[in-house]
Amino acid sequence: MGRVQAFLFVVSVAIAVLLSPVTADDERCDLSRSLRREIQQYQPVVDQIFERIVSGEFAGKTWESLLDFTDSFGPRLTGSKQLEDAIDFAVKEMINDGLENVHTEDALVPHWERGREWAQLVEPFRKNLPMLGLGRAVGTPPEGIMAEVIAVESFEEFESFSAEQVQGKIVVFAPAWVGYGPTGRYRYESASVAAKKGAIGVLVRSMTPFSIGTPHTGTLRYDPNVRRIPAAAITVEDAMLLLRKFRRGDRMVVHLKMDAVNLEPTISRNTIGELQGTAFQNTSVVVLSGHMDSWDVGTGASDDAGGVFVSWKAVTFLKAMGLRPKRTIRAIGWTAEEQGLEGVSVYERQHAADEKEEFNVFFESDSGTFEPTGLDFSGNHEARCIFAEIAKLMRGFTEFTYTNGTVGSDIGNWVSRGFPGVSLRNQNENYFWYHHSEGDTIELEDPKALDKSTALWAATAYVIADLSIDLPKDPAPYSPSAL
Amino acid sequence: MGRVQAFLFVVSVAIAVLLSPVTADDERCDLSRSLRREIQQYQPVVDQIFERIVSGEFAGKTWESLLDFTDSFGPRLTGSKQLEDAIDFAVKEMINDGLENVHTEDALVPHWERGREWAQLVEPFRKNLPMLGLGRAVGTPPEGIMAEVIAVESFEEFESFSAEQVQGKIVVFAPAWVGYGPTGRYRYESASVAAKKGAIGVLVRSMTPFSIGTPHTGTLRYDPNVRRIPAAAITVEDAMLLLRKFRRGDRMVVHLKMDAVNLEPTISRNTIGELQGTAFQNTSVVVLSGHMDSWDVGTGASDDAGGVFVSWKAVTFLKAMGLRPKRTIRAIGWTAEEQGLEGVSVYERQHAADEKEEFNVFFESDSGTFEPTGLDFSGNHEARCIFAEIAKLMRGFTEFTYTNGTVGSDIGNWVSRGFPGVSLRNQNENYFWYHHSEGDTIELEDPKALDKSTALWAATAYVIADLSIDLPKDPAPYSPSAL
Repeated sequence: MGRVQAFLFVVSVAIAVLLSPVTADDERCDLSRSLRREIQQYQPVVDQIFERIVSGEFAGKTWESLLDFTDSFGPRLTGSKQLEDAIDFAVKEMINDGLENVHTEDALVPHWERGREWAQLVEPFRKNLPMLGLGRAVGTPPEGIMAEVIAVESFEEFESFSAEQVQGKIVVFAPAWVGYGPTGRYRYESASVAAKKGAIGVLVRSMTPFSIGTPHTGTLRYDPNVRRIPAAAITVEDAMLLLRKFRRGDRMVVHLKMDAVNLEPTISRNTIGELQGTAFQNTSVVVLSGHMDSWDVGTGASDDAGGVFVSWKAVTFLKAMGLRPKRTIRAIGWTAEEQGLEGVSVYERQHAADEKEEFNVFFESDSGTFEPTGLDFSGNHEARCIFAEIAKLMRGFTEFTYTNGTVGSDIGNWVSRGFPGVSLRNQNENYFWYHHSEGDTIELEDPKALDKSTALWAATAYVIADLSIDLPKDPAPYSPSAL
Repeated sequence: MGRVQAFLFVVSVAIAVLLSPVTADDERCDLSRSLRREIQQYQPVVDQIFERIVSGEFAGKTWESLLDFTDSFGPRLTGSKQLEDAIDFAVKEMINDGLENVHTEDALVPHWERGREWAQLVEPFRKNLPMLGLGRAVGTPPEGIMAEVIAVESFEEFESFSAEQVQGKIVVFAPAWVGYGPTGRYRYESASVAAKKGAIGVLVRSMTPFSIGTPHTGTLRYDPNVRRIPAAAITVEDAMLLLRKFRRGDRMVVHLKMDAVNLEPTISRNTIGELQGTAFQNTSVVVLSGHMDSWDVGTGASDDAGGVFVSWKAVTFLKAMGLRPKRTIRAIGWTAEEQGLEGVSVYERQHAADEKEEFNVFFESDSGTFEPTGLDFSGNHEARCIFAEIAKLMRGFTEFTYTNGTVGSDIGNWVSRGFPGVSLRNQNENYFWYHHSEGDTIELEDPKALDKSTALWAATAYVIADLSIDLPKDPAPYSPSAL
């Protein structure tokens, strides 16, 4: 599967799993009494980690750092100076926090710039259409494009239009929101689906179940064999207005202006800091991660500065508490997630040779850091049984779902290849209200919820990193073509 | 009091009253037994009106008409062709609906156009600031203005800055949302408050308690003795970001571009249709009203097409049911409410000479047409006692609040002068989430809630219009200077 398909598959399965959770309790686990006892002995240290982070000297610190970061650097679009400034800052601060082996690893990433943009309905009445060009979209000529509109609800409905009907038109896709996986297809694919029939531009209904006139951006995927046409997200309200008007036979003309440009790929960096293990440094590493880049709207506080800071501060606080496990815990802030998981892909390629030895388990938080309720886990039967036993230590956060191969987007390729993966369960029911929009800001982040997330991350990582055994895994061999 | 102050006063009192409702039950009413009996005899006709509108042949019709209207004409900015097209359509449709004496009455109104506009933070990092220029604001030079930022939370805080510090700056006002009355001052007054100290532009935090990165427009009021400077609303999130950054000492530069222009005043029209009374035609008129104009964002479905259609369709359905009361019920769609109550002011001046005879009571719906719960009433003690008795007939909608002189904005001047006034109580707790934003669209309107509102409006108006007596009133004389 291509990268995007893999991502969509991962998301779809994750959603399916959320709808029908399977917990480890549902199956028989034959952990040895000694392993069970070993895990249970971590209860005091787990309690201590929670106490210090949630109500002790670290309380509020994750949020404070997140606030300082988003206020200082704002949105962090891949290819922007702001992202690189934020990475430089993270390196400096990780060193200040006492993290070890702090460094960056280069990755060649796309460099797309939005530029000035707007859309307007000009016939039969005038109305601005608040919009956001889709990531990696091409722009229009400087004067924009002005064309008649066709509006449909689905690809199936679009099939009923001939190339002759579509030729020279701007096509509006207004799919009902079903979920990010199934509805997200329209953001990825609409431009090429429409261009195949001669459309000159595309407007897609924003990917959200709720709207107050807010557009939501995100990347598209051009079919390499089809002409690239400008594509933007418009609000749910406007998409539905245009769809209703088209269906009642109103002739509509839209003027779309986008100065978007795809520049030469540029160098960005994955950001890495560690708490090095007492017994193993570069093998059996426990990875905690989120992504540093964001869209160029809001400040990317929830997507995904929250994930970065929960991961980074978990390591910081373990170090400050003098807790050093047998294995290395490595915090990674991936780059260029939003533009096709580019940072992690480079990292995975560069670490492919020795990855069986290098990695024990991958954590990723990239679905919000609202009030946490537990963890999601993916891994083989044995790993799952061990994880379920560890999860019992997390008093008040023992909600635990086995997600069968799918947690997170950046770590998805490892996980689908059989590595154990962990992600944060949290009360993110409204995550997509804000996702990729101007509403993704520090207002979404609550200090106490972040403390609990950091504590849960730190305690779980610590126990796994300190156990007498690795979490079992059956990794399939790395294959670049799988990406 | 000036018009704006009067409006703000009205809103503040309305809010205060909402917080501590006083009902007619709290006081002694000495209605005659015969009047009580007369009112009670309307129970069957009230029930019939509800039955026919809520579950009979008129069910869903108010929403259908509202949908057709907003989809056909979109936003209806004062001065725009779209507003005048909508008024032409309303006249034609009112005639089709069988309304009588359908006509328009001219009013000279402001003609402000938004033009292209944008704002961007350019230092210390780049971020688009989604914005909406405030109504009647002047524009910037074509290249925009670029200036350093001062950000404050309140006028009091702004007082601590000297003219020297403010000179040449763009001032951000980020008041916490307390309510539309008290917080609304910042939208009205900030431009002149800042310009007095030499500021060259103003950005105001949008007037809403909840935001997903959406700006909310609305009119401002320039002090005639102060230089007019460009002013726009930015999102809650961005206002708070700029305030936090200013307070931590970050030097910020904003680039603001607004092509807004104030053109010559133009002619618009109040739209009028009636169900003429059997006994009185042009005296003791019961007015049902909302405003036809809207801001140029969303489609003004909730502010205030909903109010217009509840008023208009109440008259339509009474006529279709063959219910003709003693007094005329007059539906009015005011023009130019949003730009300073201009339509109603002209109407009031033109009808001032004979208003004691002409009007019995004024209804206005302009605070949302969500699920209705009852009515608000203003009038003298006697009127209040009669109204309380009528309200008892509205089974399921007997929630009734006495608001002491303040209901609605368009009818506010009459009501504050002692005329009885009625407005729609509804579940509008989230009204300001959408108000004056791209989120004010048909999605806010529910067919069943509209049916109930129309029925409540129709039944209450019918009983008042058909009673043996007028609602008592003590009107103060009309004075143009009061506006």
